[in-house]
Amino acid sequence: MSAQIIKEKVEQAKQFLQEFDVDCWITFARESQINGDPMLAFLTPAGITWHSAFMINKDRSTHVIVGRYDVPALDEMGVYDKVEGFVTGIKEKFIEYMKKKNPSKIAINYSKGSEICDGLTYGMFLTLYEMLAEIGMEDRLVSAERLVSAIRERKTPAEISNMKEAIRITEEIWDATYKWLKPGIKSIEVADFMKAEAAKRNVGLAWEPSVCPAVFAGLGEGEAHYAPGEKPVTRGEILNMDFGVRYNNYVSDMQRTFYVLKEDETEAPEDVQHGFNIIVKAVQDAKDSIQPGKEACEVDAVARQVVVDGGFEEFPHALGHQLGIFSHDGTALLGPKWEKYAEKPYQKLEENMVFTIEPRCTVPNRGIATIEEMIVITKDGAEWLTTPQKELFLIK
Amino acid sequence: MSAQIIKEKVEQAKQFLQEFDVDCWITFARESQINGDPMLAFLTPAGITWHSAFMINKDRSTHVIVGRYDVPALDEMGVYDKVEGFVTGIKEKFIEYMKKKNPSKIAINYSKGSEICDGLTYGMFLTLYEMLAEIGMEDRLVSAERLVSAIRERKTPAEISNMKEAIRITEEIWDATYKWLKPGIKSIEVADFMKAEAAKRNVGLAWEPSVCPAVFAGLGEGEAHYAPGEKPVTRGEILNMDFGVRYNNYVSDMQRTFYVLKEDETEAPEDVQHGFNIIVKAVQDAKDSIQPGKEACEVDAVARQVVVDGGFEEFPHALGHQLGIFSHDGTALLGPKWEKYAEKPYQKLEENMVFTIEPRCTVPNRGIATIEEMIVITKDGAEWLTTPQKELFLIK
Repeated sequence: MSAQIIKEKVEQAKQFLQEFDVDCWITFARESQINGDPMLAFLTPAGITWHSAFMINKDRSTHVIVGRYDVPALDEMGVYDKVEGFVTGIKEKFIEYMKKKNPSKIAINYSKGSEICDGLTYGMFLTLYEMLAEIGMEDRLVSAERLVSAIRERKTPAEISNMKEAIRITEEIWDATYKWLKPGIKSIEVADFMKAEAAKRNVGLAWEPSVCPAVFAGLGEGEAHYAPGEKPVTRGEILNMDFGVRYNNYVSDMQRTFYVLKEDETEAPEDVQHGFNIIVKAVQDAKDSIQPGKEACEVDAVARQVVVDGGFEEFPHALGHQLGIFSHDGTALLGPKWEKYAEKPYQKLEENMVFTIEPRCTVPNRGIATIEEMIVITKDGAEWLTTPQKELFLIK
Repeated sequence: MSAQIIKEKVEQAKQFLQEFDVDCWITFARESQINGDPMLAFLTPAGITWHSAFMINKDRSTHVIVGRYDVPALDEMGVYDKVEGFVTGIKEKFIEYMKKKNPSKIAINYSKGSEICDGLTYGMFLTLYEMLAEIGMEDRLVSAERLVSAIRERKTPAEISNMKEAIRITEEIWDATYKWLKPGIKSIEVADFMKAEAAKRNVGLAWEPSVCPAVFAGLGEGEAHYAPGEKPVTRGEILNMDFGVRYNNYVSDMQRTFYVLKEDETEAPEDVQHGFNIIVKAVQDAKDSIQPGKEACEVDAVARQVVVDGGFEEFPHALGHQLGIFSHDGTALLGPKWEKYAEKPYQKLEENMVFTIEPRCTVPNRGIATIEEMIVITKDGAEWLTTPQKELFLIK
């Protein structure tokens, strides 16, 4: 991550400690290449190797303790008041620092309901707990869920600008793909083409390459699979792809729906067009319903109702998720109140959150119609970040 | 990861459950792109999104419960007896399964001392604990550290063959780099050259690209930094790089030492040659001392003594680490008994473990001499995986 964005996010964190009334926020992690806390991206420009503690305090002071070899990269960034290095172990320096600060409420990165706020491993929790127990502070620990959520969710202008550029590039790739597509091309070839277009533009993929893009090529194999396979683009069927790129660490995530015309067709048949229209309406109505202060699930309910009213089964997933440096980022979720979503659908919408909107319906004997757009929440509504798909893309 | 290696590792796991007397081993994770357990690479060919539980039992039965969209990829692999999918939440199916199996000892992925065995987050631990508490099984939980370590450390022939190919490619890149190097080239240009050589050969980098390779170009900036910068390759100084590639998910990790001749030199001066010779001896003596059954720290001590006897300060890090799908993998570590290494230096060496050997010394006013080789432990010793550096690479 760039030093500029780290600086912005650490400044935000200082404010949020006030807002959520926490004295000291500790990110405690090791070996970022293996199992680092997802919060580290906002705290260090490099990785960390040994036990590392990043302390940000309500009094606006900051302090980092890391292994000696991780000091220079952090030190030069100039974001933290002090960066201390150790050779043999973190314990002595950490305990000394905590005794000096003596915070009453200490927030750490764990959460049952939100994976993005759950970066502390159980082994590291035990290590931290035992160190704090030695100085009688172990009962001061609380979850940093709200704090971490706010840092990830309230996007700065620099973050939104990175996501806009990722979207611009993705839309170029949709155009190129639309021009190139023909019946008979296999799903895996579609995927390879889109990946090559991303590589040409020097951007990475937004998620795991084996399913970025995911390709849903009509019926049979095409319905069941994320991972693109041998199923060809087939006349009379719907085709769609789920794709995104990564620009300066920030991702896009979009889906587009294509219909593959039969030899004698010049437009999509009524059933396909109806399914597509319902999805367009579900996206638009959901976007129009967005307001800061609303519960996230209310927006999901709007789109879900449009799909059901259109005569389709409701989609077996949430309407939309937040994005950032991951394609699934943040806590608040435009989703139904299902067990697996925990408290996410109950979160309040806030200005500068970035969400996808992605309802879906299955058109019998045709495939899956789905569109995925991205929006940013404004003071009194939402703005498109993507150029919304309003017409079916027809393949001849 | 290939289905073949997953199949091998799941078979190993079944044996190890017997060896370590565990009834049921659960890997419990969610959103692998954000903070997945590092064990997932050996359990699924794709990622996972929602709460996912992988159960492997001492009775050799296996069972997986994942979100519905993650079912097909796992199902087709054909490794697990049963793959169940859910839409709204995992709890009901998980509790039903555990009640039926009723295991007495349940191992889960946490460890204070070994990050690679510490994949379970604290939030996920709480979720699992509360589900098990509902059926009175919460006190049956133990750490899977020994089990997970064995799965990662006892390499199969297919794993070793992938690492050999990664090393072969890395050695090609060392050769190309040696031929190309000249005084005046900046560290960042050295890094860009090596990265381009890897890209040409269609392999990824073994770790975080900003420090792969790490370039230590002599004095000043060159000594302090992992990350390559503006420091040029300078006559009269030592240059070294730390570099590895990734082939079929498995990595190499090597360091080579170069000396940059002054205009009037045809060989390295005595102080540089002495430092280099000490490192060569430290590597060789350490390798010769390896035997299954020894404590890992004994091997570190051999090399450390050679360096100190050679008149240098002892190196501020471990002599060597294991590798696999990460450049730091496994639990046992050829390291001193320092706090940050916890129990790792006390582990017993075993056949088929793959280690680096990487002692280092600082030659005053010249830079850092260091070599990093890779070895695999055999029934009665160790074999080179790399072609060991025995002569200084001289740059004219």
